[in-house]
Amino acid sequence: MSVTIKDVAKKAGVGLGTVSRVLNNHPSVSEETRKKVLDAIKELDYNPNAIARSLKVKSTKSIGVMIPDISSAFYPDIVRGIEDIANEYKYNIILLNTDLKREKEKEALIMLKEKKADGILFISNTISEKLKRDFKKVNIPIVLIATKDDESEFYSVTIDNERAAYEATKYLIKLGHKRIAMIAGKKEDPNAGIPRINGYKRALEESGLKLDENIIFYGDYKFKSGYQNMLKVLKLKDKPTAIFSASDTMAVGAASCAMQHGFKVPDDFSIIGFDGVELAEYFYPPITTVKQPRYEMGAKGMEMLIKILQGEDVEREVQLDFELIERSSCKVKGES
Amino acid sequence: MSVTIKDVAKKAGVGLGTVSRVLNNHPSVSEETRKKVLDAIKELDYNPNAIARSLKVKSTKSIGVMIPDISSAFYPDIVRGIEDIANEYKYNIILLNTDLKREKEKEALIMLKEKKADGILFISNTISEKLKRDFKKVNIPIVLIATKDDESEFYSVTIDNERAAYEATKYLIKLGHKRIAMIAGKKEDPNAGIPRINGYKRALEESGLKLDENIIFYGDYKFKSGYQNMLKVLKLKDKPTAIFSASDTMAVGAASCAMQHGFKVPDDFSIIGFDGVELAEYFYPPITTVKQPRYEMGAKGMEMLIKILQGEDVEREVQLDFELIERSSCKVKGES
Repeated sequence: MSVTIKDVAKKAGVGLGTVSRVLNNHPSVSEETRKKVLDAIKELDYNPNAIARSLKVKSTKSIGVMIPDISSAFYPDIVRGIEDIANEYKYNIILLNTDLKREKEKEALIMLKEKKADGILFISNTISEKLKRDFKKVNIPIVLIATKDDESEFYSVTIDNERAAYEATKYLIKLGHKRIAMIAGKKEDPNAGIPRINGYKRALEESGLKLDENIIFYGDYKFKSGYQNMLKVLKLKDKPTAIFSASDTMAVGAASCAMQHGFKVPDDFSIIGFDGVELAEYFYPPITTVKQPRYEMGAKGMEMLIKILQGEDVEREVQLDFELIERSSCKVKGES
Repeated sequence: MSVTIKDVAKKAGVGLGTVSRVLNNHPSVSEETRKKVLDAIKELDYNPNAIARSLKVKSTKSIGVMIPDISSAFYPDIVRGIEDIANEYKYNIILLNTDLKREKEKEALIMLKEKKADGILFISNTISEKLKRDFKKVNIPIVLIATKDDESEFYSVTIDNERAAYEATKYLIKLGHKRIAMIAGKKEDPNAGIPRINGYKRALEESGLKLDENIIFYGDYKFKSGYQNMLKVLKLKDKPTAIFSASDTMAVGAASCAMQHGFKVPDDFSIIGFDGVELAEYFYPPITTVKQPRYEMGAKGMEMLIKILQGEDVEREVQLDFELIERSSCKVKGES
């Protein structure tokens, strides 16, 4: 069996994304890590091009990437991860923006069938029964990224959204906050919506805090809905002292709204976001967040797809680690 | 001659990007505009698929897109513009991240030659003599986006960077600022570097303001260099009251730095950015900026490339309009 990038990662004791970064000469890798990876490559005699050549001849060497919107902050890092692995194995990416519209998803699948794509990476939207049927109809290997289907019929790369939301809420509780609002995602979204709400509720419950459904606000993960939900928070008589937002972009919207109305972050409201996008890092104050490993999710999904195309065994559901990044938007309750 | 998307845009009296948005069902188009475009499509009997089919049979229907880094804020909108036009004409995009490295650019060109790409869109990096030779060697039609070569040997889509920087500086001067620092790009960058510095200097000169080379700081367009250059500004004895930054991301870095050190934006420093990325819009205070039409630049570049492939006449150098967007990071000098 040929040596894969995964073997290199294991040997070097680093993540898949790190190996990919080394192969792509990313500046963010330390010299020490780079050396470890290069040593592993040498020892294992790893050669991505040789593997690529060994693939079946009928392959078009193209992979369809179905993404809601490349211009939305969450996705470019995922695509970069996909691209870096794809380029090593000499695959093309056919990038298709679906804007979360079923009609466009259907069109994209038809196009990828026509183009004889070897595989498909489907990113982030919910998987309806109808879409599942369409997936089966095109009969092209598919890996889901940042989403999964109820019955795990398809390969997927995600994080544990419930646990990540639980940790975010726990973090606020540990800072002494007792009245914590949530700016949630969509009520019916089985990925970024429901599990994050469940994690929030579980953290409150475990800590013996009262759940108040009136301070769960629903949004669409975008700036405006964070801003507008914060307006509702500001009108409450019994205001929360902390807010958990199901996306960084909504968290920034909420913080902007609070500051524009003369409140201070974190003095008046501690705010924690979700995703780990650049916007949260560069906002002032920098927003504490739960970071999803987006580059790694893209790289891992592409790597799984290539393995599937090579006929290798692949784990059906992969969950990558998230990371709570402490910045300056949260503080101990009551401290000034 | 077949009807192109440009004819539709002309007929409807709207921009190319707008037609593309209508064809792609973007939510951002007003009903009135949508109707105008659809009427024009009907009248002209425009059919992108028919045009696509009429193209030479040897085409692989794939276009190489060479981009510094899809995960950097400036680029996703350009790629989205490219994609939307590409999908209408049933083209694939082969996306290649070059990280502004010559070695990667060379590898990318070799790969695109191997893959028999019909055309190439090259985004944003400077065009060296060596790269020009490589471009000629691969002998694939190329359109440059957000960059151009000295002698205009290649087709290009840009904005007038000198004039845009001039307008940004003039804006600060009109607000009464007399001591205006610049956080510039790279000294040797003929696109986003030199022309923006020249525009800044011309505005000062025309207004009879003294040019002080000591308050021009050079950066790499990223957050950290905006932050670090602002540290230098804060150490000046004779501090400027306004700052023109050659990128939004540096402007946000500068504003963060000022605020972290107890200064207020815009009370202590008026700051204007450049590019029009989301980060500037969502920062608090929202950053006034010169917006580059990134989506349109991508769409226009792709449209030009398709015309070239169809053997049609295309203007060699296209300059699109920029837009000064007033937000809350600048104010009249001395007003409080």
